[in-house]
Amino acid sequence: MPSGSKIKQRIWEVLEPAGDGDRTSRFCDVFILALIALNVLAVIIETIPYVHEHHATPLRIFDLVSVIIFTIEYFLRIATCTVDPRYGNHFSGRLRFALRPISLIDLFAILPFYLPFVGVDPRALRMIRLMRIFRILKAVRYVSSLELIKRVLHSKREELAVTFFIMMFLIVISATVLYYCEFPVQPEHFSSIPASMWWSIATLTTIGYGDIYPITIIGKICASIIALLGIALFALPTAILGAGFIEQIHRKKNLEKCQICGKEFKTDSSPGLE
Amino acid sequence: MPSGSKIKQRIWEVLEPAGDGDRTSRFCDVFILALIALNVLAVIIETIPYVHEHHATPLRIFDLVSVIIFTIEYFLRIATCTVDPRYGNHFSGRLRFALRPISLIDLFAILPFYLPFVGVDPRALRMIRLMRIFRILKAVRYVSSLELIKRVLHSKREELAVTFFIMMFLIVISATVLYYCEFPVQPEHFSSIPASMWWSIATLTTIGYGDIYPITIIGKICASIIALLGIALFALPTAILGAGFIEQIHRKKNLEKCQICGKEFKTDSSPGLE
Amino acid sequence: MPSGSKIKQRIWEVLEPAGDGDRTSRFCDVFILALIALNVLAVIIETIPYVHEHHATPLRIFDLVSVIIFTIEYFLRIATCTVDPRYGNHFSGRLRFALRPISLIDLFAILPFYLPFVGVDPRALRMIRLMRIFRILKAVRYVSSLELIKRVLHSKREELAVTFFIMMFLIVISATVLYYCEFPVQPEHFSSIPASMWWSIATLTTIGYGDIYPITIIGKICASIIALLGIALFALPTAILGAGFIEQIHRKKNLEKCQICGKEFKTDSSPGLE
Amino acid sequence: MPSGSKIKQRIWEVLEPAGDGDRTSRFCDVFILALIALNVLAVIIETIPYVHEHHATPLRIFDLVSVIIFTIEYFLRIATCTVDPRYGNHFSGRLRFALRPISLIDLFAILPFYLPFVGVDPRALRMIRLMRIFRILKAVRYVSSLELIKRVLHSKREELAVTFFIMMFLIVISATVLYYCEFPVQPEHFSSIPASMWWSIATLTTIGYGDIYPITIIGKICASIIALLGIALFALPTAILGAGFIEQIHRKKNLEKCQICGKEFKTDSSPGLE
Repeated sequence: MPSGSKIKQRIWEVLEPAGDGDRTSRFCDVFILALIALNVLAVIIETIPYVHEHHATPLRIFDLVSVIIFTIEYFLRIATCTVDPRYGNHFSGRLRFALRPISLIDLFAILPFYLPFVGVDPRALRMIRLMRIFRILKAVRYVSSLELIKRVLHSKREELAVTFFIMMFLIVISATVLYYCEFPVQPEHFSSIPASMWWSIATLTTIGYGDIYPITIIGKICASIIALLGIALFALPTAILGAGFIEQIHRKKNLEKCQICGKEFKTDSSPGLE
Repeated sequence: MPSGSKIKQRIWEVLEPAGDGDRTSRFCDVFILALIALNVLAVIIETIPYVHEHHATPLRIFDLVSVIIFTIEYFLRIATCTVDPRYGNHFSGRLRFALRPISLIDLFAILPFYLPFVGVDPRALRMIRLMRIFRILKAVRYVSSLELIKRVLHSKREELAVTFFIMMFLIVISATVLYYCEFPVQPEHFSSIPASMWWSIATLTTIGYGDIYPITIIGKICASIIALLGIALFALPTAILGAGFIEQIHRKKNLEKCQICGKEFKTDSSPGLE
Repeated sequence: MPSGSKIKQRIWEVLEPAGDGDRTSRFCDVFILALIALNVLAVIIETIPYVHEHHATPLRIFDLVSVIIFTIEYFLRIATCTVDPRYGNHFSGRLRFALRPISLIDLFAILPFYLPFVGVDPRALRMIRLMRIFRILKAVRYVSSLELIKRVLHSKREELAVTFFIMMFLIVISATVLYYCEFPVQPEHFSSIPASMWWSIATLTTIGYGDIYPITIIGKICASIIALLGIALFALPTAILGAGFIEQIHRKKNLEKCQICGKEFKTDSSPGLE
Repeated sequence: MPSGSKIKQRIWEVLEPAGDGDRTSRFCDVFILALIALNVLAVIIETIPYVHEHHATPLRIFDLVSVIIFTIEYFLRIATCTVDPRYGNHFSGRLRFALRPISLIDLFAILPFYLPFVGVDPRALRMIRLMRIFRILKAVRYVSSLELIKRVLHSKREELAVTFFIMMFLIVISATVLYYCEFPVQPEHFSSIPASMWWSIATLTTIGYGDIYPITIIGKICASIIALLGIALFALPTAILGAGFIEQIHRKKNLEKCQICGKEFKTDSSPGLE
């Protein structure tokens, strides 16, 4: 049925992020994004006691409507995905489509709503209501220029992993040192190494809530050394990522051919030149 | 009347940021800047109770004199702007001039003073007095080398927007997670997700006032993971801007012509070379 | 005895970080790494009072088994190191091998266990038990891509040292200034310059626990100037390391030969190009 | 008297930072540096009440000896500086030498000691004793690789000044906004705009002592926006300095001549290549 497959093709196009000039698809994108934003807002304000007590019903109706729309959207995507040659196969293609991370997010956005119908521990209801916040992840589909950041993170994954590893070193060792220094004096704060690790993280990230800090002289000296080391250490991710961004920009190379020798000179395309 | 248009031309030149060697214009710039600085200082110190009680009169007189000068300055600008070919037209040119952001700032710097004369809610008077602080924005006119920073921010607006978007993600999701963990134990601090977002922002920006922090073990574990993620995330703007600055510097390209083949080699002008 | 030296060769290979395809050696690496991780975990959780009281025995047995394995590993390494031509000599080679930092870490990981047998102050026992945390350093052997970070740190050691020196300046001078301002008002917090240095470090690293801060006006003004200076100062390590990473990436240069003049042009290999 | 001028030449050489191989001069440098370090340490520990009470005499003797040595050093420098052609003239050369910043630091390091002899307000004595901490600045003479950092700061002074200017903007405006929001609720903390600026600086530098923070909802919302803006803003110095370091490294350019066309190609000297 060619007209049926045309409709299918059109639904697929409209649901996917819009190309240039496709105003219906663009409208659909904006509608879905706005619905996502409103859903997130609804979850956030619903937790305010005043709102919870006085405006619960409209929020519930809004949630119901949203889930219906998201459910329709989900099944339309599953139904029409065979238009894309990558998921062309009736069954295995659809399955591969449904198992993509972004499709699982779509499923995860509606599933919690249906859980209570199939029977769920009532104590888990609060968690289920809050899990609606993850609908925010549906918006990822529309963030097109995430690409560069993802490429930078990917190209630097090894250095970042090593940095993370060194951080773990510093957190574990500094927590042990401070536990040794401070436990005898303030056992209620530095009660164990895990408790001391909470101090390590709050200090090395320079958050410093002030709920836990050394009071002995030796503890303060150790903490000072650790804090100064921490600065150098926590400068590493910034430095690595900065180098990564510059690399990615440089990658757009220009090849220029010398018309006499016929050799291609790989001239460095200065970043920012077209 | 040619001598009239000469005076107009001269007033325009004197009011605009000075070119080289124009000492009258330079003096005018310094005078306006000093007046702006003193106005800002006046607003700041006026709020100190002691000053407010004992030195209110001189401050009011100073404010009056300032407003008169700024008003004259504003109308002189409007009157002489037709000298600039871009705003040459008697009416529409002047209107376009008056609607430029910097002209609106000039207007906004004097308007609050005149509001009470046209009748205004006396409760708003305190806000009006404080709004004089925005006279500081008049100084923007004289910050010439803002250009590079503006260009870097503009060329990187997309990456910065994505980073901002990811930050919002992390703020919303971490606030929800911490609300879930901490609400049952300290409902006075993590009373709702918006309250919990205040914690998220104070933590992810590493401010950490210490007015609100997790006390449950699961909450501390989640907070630790969020804090460590936050470091990587908040390293992104620095990395992106750093790459942006290097790009802008590189952009001054040199083209060099091979005298045999006549081809232009786009040699990378190493930054810092003239 | 050739078969003996073959076994020796094999033990050496298995103990060293695995090359490609050597599955036995890979298994051995993973086993040692897992044992290290479990040891660190054991030390951490052992300090939790509940665990300490109810699960002390299995932890002690696990410690005993670990020490036995690490001791065997240590002596096998010492025994077989002569396979490596660098440590070929029977005695002096082995000694040089045993004095490498990584070998000393191996020794240090088992030594504390044997100390009580040769008689040690019982008050030091707590420290000895905690020192087992340094077994985490054994993992350094397996972190292969530490290389780049080490090279960057090495190439920038001078600038980092100068930055560290300026930091010390700022810490010492700001501590003295704040001690001068704040001691007369809050002698319990800014009791001496060393106490004031604790404030300096917590402020310049932007930790800001909130246990000590200026309350006099002059102290707050000085602290503000110091904090703003501190930002510029603490931006230096990040900037220096960032430049270092970019340099190291650039270093993979390409040389290209012009086929006419035979001259090698040192074209800048844009980073990221293979 | 040639032998006299030889001695003068030698004293000058020994006092100046040592060149290669001059062991006497090197020893003198190390001696002066060690004396500076010990002086700083003496000032620091002297403020500890216990030390002040029990070990005052040896510290005073040490101070006396140090001042004598520093005084001799100062006058020897003044006496021998005419050896340097730049300060060749008997009187005006010496004066110019004595007015260099580093010479003024040398003078400033000894002057406080002599002030009480010429009569000084006894209440100023405490300040004079503490001012000995600035002897640490004498060490600047020996920090040779400060050059690169100074050049980077100099080449970027304009951008850094603009950034500093924008920071001032943000500090002043955010302080006014928070003063407006918080004064009615907590007049003891946000008592005036200057008090509110203390909050601004503690927040924008991400120190966050926790002595002052917004408690109203509108205040928290404004503070959140300011904090997030602040991150972008305070990323600028790091980014600018990072770009500056890379520029300085790049500046070592290579010029290569094509042997056919005779043209010099300015090939980008990749940083790190010799």
